[in-house]
Amino acid sequence: MENKLLSSQEIQELRKSLPTWEEAEGKLVKRFKFTNFIEAFGFMTKIAIISESLSHHPEWTNIYSEVIIRLSTHDMGGITMLDYKLAKAIDAIKYE
Amino acid sequence: MENKLLSSQEIQELRKSLPTWEEAEGKLVKRFKFTNFIEAFGFMTKIAIISESLSHHPEWTNIYSEVIIRLSTHDMGGITMLDYKLAKAIDAIKYE
Repeated sequence: MENKLLSSQEIQELRKSLPTWEEAEGKLVKRFKFTNFIEAFGFMTKIAIISESLSHHPEWTNIYSEVIIRLSTHDMGGITMLDYKLAKAIDAIKYE
Repeated sequence: MENKLLSSQEIQELRKSLPTWEEAEGKLVKRFKFTNFIEAFGFMTKIAIISESLSHHPEWTNIYSEVIIRLSTHDMGGITMLDYKLAKAIDAIKYE
């Protein structure tokens, strides 16, 4: 099941392919910095569309050119494969 | 000057026309709740465009259908007329 809580060991294993994400307070966390607000919000717009298509949404904060994303599966109270998939999709946007 | 820090008295006076905004930690704060993520992010997109046109941007957090907006003028370390104007513009979106 995609929304099964992952064990610490599973998270550590999956994080090998997400080296730029931190794990904090039961969430996958990453901070992105852009040159200005337009770039930051453009990035957020791409994630918004992907999130909706995955039926899984980030918790995120934007301050001008900075976007901080925190991924967890609220219903499960922790990190699941849904969070891992969204993190991978976000990294694919950022670097494509 | 629009980016002059407002006094407590000035803020209290201006907040009479912003009754749904709280003042907390030197920021104007308001929480919006929508029916789903699409509505929440649609609202954010409108604000993004307005913010850019005002050259003044919110600090904001989105969690699915919830948007929490915190307005302050970072350069000045507090609330200015720019924050008041953006708050008024946000309320105009929400209720139009």
